[in-house]
Amino acid sequence: MNHSEYVTQLTTRVQKASRALRSVQTATTNQALLTVASALRQKTADILAANELDVQAAQQQGISGSMLDRLILTPERIDGMAQGVEEIAGFSQPLGKILEERTLSNGAQLSRVSVPIGAVFFIFESRPNVTIDGAALCFKSGNAVILRGGKESLHSSMLLADIFRNGLEQHGVDPDAVQLVNTPDREVVSLLLQADHALDLVIPRGGEGLIRAVVEQSRIPVIKHYKGVCHQYVDQSADLEKAIPLLLNSKVQRPGVCNAMETVLIDKALSTEAVRKLLQPLLDAGVELYGCAETCAVIPDALPVPSLDFYHTEHLDLKLSVRLVDGVQGAIDHLNTYASGHTDGVIAEDATVQERFVAQVDSSSVMVNTSTRFSDGGQYGLGAEVGISTDKLHARGPMGVESLCTYKWILRGTGQIRS
Amino acid sequence: MNHSEYVTQLTTRVQKASRALRSVQTATTNQALLTVASALRQKTADILAANELDVQAAQQQGISGSMLDRLILTPERIDGMAQGVEEIAGFSQPLGKILEERTLSNGAQLSRVSVPIGAVFFIFESRPNVTIDGAALCFKSGNAVILRGGKESLHSSMLLADIFRNGLEQHGVDPDAVQLVNTPDREVVSLLLQADHALDLVIPRGGEGLIRAVVEQSRIPVIKHYKGVCHQYVDQSADLEKAIPLLLNSKVQRPGVCNAMETVLIDKALSTEAVRKLLQPLLDAGVELYGCAETCAVIPDALPVPSLDFYHTEHLDLKLSVRLVDGVQGAIDHLNTYASGHTDGVIAEDATVQERFVAQVDSSSVMVNTSTRFSDGGQYGLGAEVGISTDKLHARGPMGVESLCTYKWILRGTGQIRS
Repeated sequence: MNHSEYVTQLTTRVQKASRALRSVQTATTNQALLTVASALRQKTADILAANELDVQAAQQQGISGSMLDRLILTPERIDGMAQGVEEIAGFSQPLGKILEERTLSNGAQLSRVSVPIGAVFFIFESRPNVTIDGAALCFKSGNAVILRGGKESLHSSMLLADIFRNGLEQHGVDPDAVQLVNTPDREVVSLLLQADHALDLVIPRGGEGLIRAVVEQSRIPVIKHYKGVCHQYVDQSADLEKAIPLLLNSKVQRPGVCNAMETVLIDKALSTEAVRKLLQPLLDAGVELYGCAETCAVIPDALPVPSLDFYHTEHLDLKLSVRLVDGVQGAIDHLNTYASGHTDGVIAEDATVQERFVAQVDSSSVMVNTSTRFSDGGQYGLGAEVGISTDKLHARGPMGVESLCTYKWILRGTGQIRS
Repeated sequence: MNHSEYVTQLTTRVQKASRALRSVQTATTNQALLTVASALRQKTADILAANELDVQAAQQQGISGSMLDRLILTPERIDGMAQGVEEIAGFSQPLGKILEERTLSNGAQLSRVSVPIGAVFFIFESRPNVTIDGAALCFKSGNAVILRGGKESLHSSMLLADIFRNGLEQHGVDPDAVQLVNTPDREVVSLLLQADHALDLVIPRGGEGLIRAVVEQSRIPVIKHYKGVCHQYVDQSADLEKAIPLLLNSKVQRPGVCNAMETVLIDKALSTEAVRKLLQPLLDAGVELYGCAETCAVIPDALPVPSLDFYHTEHLDLKLSVRLVDGVQGAIDHLNTYASGHTDGVIAEDATVQERFVAQVDSSSVMVNTSTRFSDGGQYGLGAEVGISTDKLHARGPMGVESLCTYKWILRGTGQIRS
């Protein structure tokens, strides 16, 4: 079977499975998920053996320690996957919700009801557990899914997908509701991204390079975020006793994730002493500071930013860009150029400053006197996270399972015609 | 200025204007719209003169009668535009709505609030009044817009855009919130479709060819419908006294629009007599029937469909495809292959049949015992229509001004940090 035939097989099956899912009852969905969870636990030894093949191959190719860490499965991580699936089984049903309804003047009943999006193409990098997360979130929301993991995790992902498919089959559900691309060849991805007759949504999760390549090739809508260059702005009116722990938490609590702070903007109206008081605890926590000229004049340990473009940097590390700005308007101007639309915060006691920041800053999450680290589906009470979107359409910010739903209009009449 | 420089100018201005719109008060927006409406009426003579230039050029190039009719402006049509703008000024404010809110366990207040999408690229064909509709809908919802009309209407559209921009300026609003592409060159469109750093949404309105070209080129999300191949399925349980006027209304009330019926599916379980009773009134109304072999056996005046592919046809005329199907499942199977996702209806008294159809048919509007012609923003109570979407994401079916909004998350705390 050549690539084109393989893609036709995948898309034909995903369409068939997507239609079949329309008849699956909620109870069946949740029981099938519980079956998958217990199968994951039962097959822990098999999963570890498959994962070992991936890990050995990766080590031979000399992948980095952090990549290897993401690839490795352990009994605890497998149990974590099973728990995640059980949690998703316990979510309330996102489908069939009446989003609005009214009676038209002619007596017909109009309603707008949540339905699955249809068929999703989920592309991810090395972590094999995303196979299970992605499959469970799509299945819960009535969507058929084609999964494409990183080539490093192919053995692990194939077994995990098989376990999921077996769980579906045991409950009479078409197993093609979950398909995994079984080749690392990129041409298959390219062909799938053209299949807008069969696929409704692409969700890429991974590095900026992967995501840009997907957007450039895709005729199918893509929901994504390229990167998280998150900011805190500390206003003259800030309570420094609040600001210091907020900056520390935003930067150092987990520096490698997308909602960690990458740049702090500080009001020029603050005293030199206040600026030092804000930044010294970060230095003490081992954070390298990269500052504008005015910052470096105040903080001798700060390194000068090499150019303004540096403020686009997502450090994902114990590094922080610093810039002194002309009040809240200076912060807004900086954000208009350098923010990534992910999460940006204001630390201020002045309510006028807070509201101006909230109104003018067009990021998917805007924080007031809180840590950027709260920008997260779990923290927002959305349950397991499909991803974070910095797009404007459909879903913005942390995406829960409802982001995998759309709606249709239903008009029920008794013979009404239009005059 | 070359094309690339011109596109940079357009996108730089649209970003600046989009940011400036964030500070415009609701009252200012509505007053500016009323100023535009009265300016349209005052400048009727100028608009007619500009339109005359377009009409003369079009006649010299020998465009079709229906194209010419869409191009021509009259005092009544200009007054209709002004009324449309006044109506949009009267709409309730779609921005700043609290879509959900809750207090997190740490005491921070989470809300999800409607905000503008940002910058819209609106592409349309010959009707010059879409210049005003598109500008008014985008401006009402806080979006800056780049409009690109058909080359036939360039003189008319440029004057209309100028009138709109003057109205904005009179109220202190950045006139670049509304820009019109001033050249028919397609390269400008291609370059704009790549400008995903500046533009958030593309809405193309026109023929299927235009829309496919836009989707193929665009890196920006597109909301669209290619065509409306709308169906009615008449079940064995249908009340024929209801069904006959529903079919007539769906087909002949306005055959040239996207929500007109293009295919009728008839349950094979109905008697020959019933099939004749359903179809004869359509023949009497001058509708040409194109039927499957079984239809042609019953209705001698029906022409045979040349192939199954014919069922993809959007007639937009007094023509109707007919197929006898095996009950509601046969109808669903037909729709899975041939429907366009626009509007499809069931005519049945049997509630089980109705519900099966509603559950299984994945069209943006599903009708039960009503005319397909009701699938319309005005009929659904959404006000002026941005368009109709057969896409799955963001907006589906008739789109009102709320379809031009997205949301952001706001988390207001008092110093909470993540542990």
